[in-house]
Amino acid sequence: MSILIRNGYVVYGESLEVVRADVLIEGNTIVKVERGMKEPADTVIDATGKIVSPGFINLHTHSPMGLLRGLADDLPLMDWLEKHVWPMEAKLTREHIKAGAYLGALEMIKTGTTAFLDMYFHMDAVAEAVLESGLRGYLSYGMVDLGDPEKTEKEVKESLREMKAMERMGSDRVQFVFGPHAPYTCSIALLKEVRRLADEHGKLITIHVAETMAELGKIQARYGKSPVLLLDDIGFLGSDVIAAHGVWLDSRDVQTLARSGVTVVHNPASNMKLASGVMPLQKLLNAGVNVGLGTDGSASNNNLDMLEEMKLAALLHKAHNLDPTVADAKTVFRMATLNGAKALRLKAGVVKPGYLADVVVIDFNRPHLRPINDVISHLVYSANGNDVETTIVDGKILMLDREVLTLDEERILDGAEGVVSKLRGGSDGHAGGR
Amino acid sequence: MSILIRNGYVVYGESLEVVRADVLIEGNTIVKVERGMKEPADTVIDATGKIVSPGFINLHTHSPMGLLRGLADDLPLMDWLEKHVWPMEAKLTREHIKAGAYLGALEMIKTGTTAFLDMYFHMDAVAEAVLESGLRGYLSYGMVDLGDPEKTEKEVKESLREMKAMERMGSDRVQFVFGPHAPYTCSIALLKEVRRLADEHGKLITIHVAETMAELGKIQARYGKSPVLLLDDIGFLGSDVIAAHGVWLDSRDVQTLARSGVTVVHNPASNMKLASGVMPLQKLLNAGVNVGLGTDGSASNNNLDMLEEMKLAALLHKAHNLDPTVADAKTVFRMATLNGAKALRLKAGVVKPGYLADVVVIDFNRPHLRPINDVISHLVYSANGNDVETTIVDGKILMLDREVLTLDEERILDGAEGVVSKLRGGSDGHAGGR
Repeated sequence: MSILIRNGYVVYGESLEVVRADVLIEGNTIVKVERGMKEPADTVIDATGKIVSPGFINLHTHSPMGLLRGLADDLPLMDWLEKHVWPMEAKLTREHIKAGAYLGALEMIKTGTTAFLDMYFHMDAVAEAVLESGLRGYLSYGMVDLGDPEKTEKEVKESLREMKAMERMGSDRVQFVFGPHAPYTCSIALLKEVRRLADEHGKLITIHVAETMAELGKIQARYGKSPVLLLDDIGFLGSDVIAAHGVWLDSRDVQTLARSGVTVVHNPASNMKLASGVMPLQKLLNAGVNVGLGTDGSASNNNLDMLEEMKLAALLHKAHNLDPTVADAKTVFRMATLNGAKALRLKAGVVKPGYLADVVVIDFNRPHLRPINDVISHLVYSANGNDVETTIVDGKILMLDREVLTLDEERILDGAEGVVSKLRGGSDGHAGGR
Repeated sequence: MSILIRNGYVVYGESLEVVRADVLIEGNTIVKVERGMKEPADTVIDATGKIVSPGFINLHTHSPMGLLRGLADDLPLMDWLEKHVWPMEAKLTREHIKAGAYLGALEMIKTGTTAFLDMYFHMDAVAEAVLESGLRGYLSYGMVDLGDPEKTEKEVKESLREMKAMERMGSDRVQFVFGPHAPYTCSIALLKEVRRLADEHGKLITIHVAETMAELGKIQARYGKSPVLLLDDIGFLGSDVIAAHGVWLDSRDVQTLARSGVTVVHNPASNMKLASGVMPLQKLLNAGVNVGLGTDGSASNNNLDMLEEMKLAALLHKAHNLDPTVADAKTVFRMATLNGAKALRLKAGVVKPGYLADVVVIDFNRPHLRPINDVISHLVYSANGNDVETTIVDGKILMLDREVLTLDEERILDGAEGVVSKLRGGSDGHAGGR
């Protein structure tokens, strides 16, 4: 199978230089980027006036949480969690979560995400949705033991069960990742066991770190040090660790993350919406830390739109630092593409021969994307997920001209609505306006 | 002419209660909102699974600046203005600005804006584009005299010329507004003359106030008081004044604005992107100031998407105050609709019988807007301008199922591209990647 994308503006290589060229895909790989290619191809896509970009990599989300989108907003964090999110999550069955995973996968395909790193539960159900969708899913079961040794064992067992279920699927696109939830919800014993298992099985680890001031206080009171230093002291950190949030970091934390090669994931919408705080992005980048971008779950965002997330990242740090030069468009674009690929050890996130064909086509024939003065600027500051027209993952077309080819859109929307309607006790689930 | 919008979720009245109902429009007015209406109508729009919302009111923009979109970003303010924006603007002719105005009008219709308050030059050309587009334009010529009495006279003359040109058009949809640029670019004599003329002609006034710290310093050095107190002392303020930005305001400024009935326009994207600062939104709202929402020009945003702007407003103040309860969804939604209408003295911004038929239909049959747990939350936190499907202004359909009926989209996109290509000196105007 081959695909030729003709006559687009290609966001090329690590430098993000924009060149007018054709892109030839053979199998799951980009094989050629050149002007006026004559090669025959099974599928030809006309990208005149359109952008050919690396697909976006959502490096931290909880994809089934689309079910909870808009269920509760504008609330203090603990109210939001204890009165709304947790009671709803307690009711979620495997089937509910699968319906949520389909909704998330559909939304990601429609907004140009090609790979994502997820944390939730019943992840073997999520894996089934991912496999069918055509996306790349890096899927972690969120382990929480709260210091209870019985729970520790149970969480490890569930992780290994899900790992094996995913391995049985036999697809490169579905990868298991260890997901201890956070230093304040996991015991040292669990964290150490995860480190050992990740080494043994050669898997990545993802974990929430230093998201809120409250977390910082808890860890400081319990262990007398910061979350990052705690993780460092127990030998947990390494270049296979992807730490979400990283909001409350001091200079020593930043140096420790840099030294140990940890990737940190920025989640600007969620950090703003929940008023968690502002990540020290400049300090992390200056220290040489690999920083990716994530949307977090749809309950705290409230969507999975990576194009919107790039704009939020770029704007937040300018406002916070009163400096319009920080978080420039190219830096933020790299966070959403090649930095994410690096963290996932994936040869993707870049349009260049030899890289995986995880590519999107974005339609610039729209008033808010004209005139085409600067492609990267328009992607970061002017575009949104609805502008993505075609999504290709692993050399396979998942969406063409906004039509998703791998999933049944109507069935998925109805399915998600049905779950919520049932959980809310048979009301029609609509209306809103609390 | 009558329009019946059937079976949608209607965002009803000032309370923003969401009700399932039909909406009947006769002439330019909403006449009935009821379930299961049997009335015949010239046009019937099926809004099943869709939202019927008041159209958005962009209370501060420079609509022709779409031409400069992405031309320069991530730069210090004065670099941006002096090296990029001003040199480009110096080359703009009446025809260029008209091409930019068409682009802006097209983008606004496509993203659900039904009325806007504009400031730029050659506004009689902008008025022609607005008249043709079907939008409501409140158009001000941006007056700058820099203390030169000859310039004062010239600027007043140009304003009155443009006012008369607009009055000759004889359309309620095209309204002239006086637009002295800012306290630091206008002399006291000019500001006083504007106050007198606005009273004489019964016109509104719009002005930039307290946008940057630098402005604050300048005014303080020149007059020994804040911009707001300066304007108050010369008798400039009143309920017909719409002040854009209002970032650097102290408590006395806020009280003065409240007492004089001034509307303040929040421009979160621009204030963040240019690192101007963060408006004291809570203080303004607590003092009872009417606060509207604007996108500012596309060179500092970089789009005119009011749905995106609502999200930015809601997120910015949560992050800035470390309080997730501020700038809640309904408050922000009102800023973008009825508060704007109030400032413009327009019986609009609300879906309710007796109000002007400035209404949009937004398609919620999309993964990022499902399940429909809360309509207002989804509009503020999950939607973007591309989700708007139908735009109605003054009882006339400007866009139906994403097709703009009043303007030639392709001609406008080519026109805007052509202007920039010419101004950049014959390059193809593309590529980008500075």
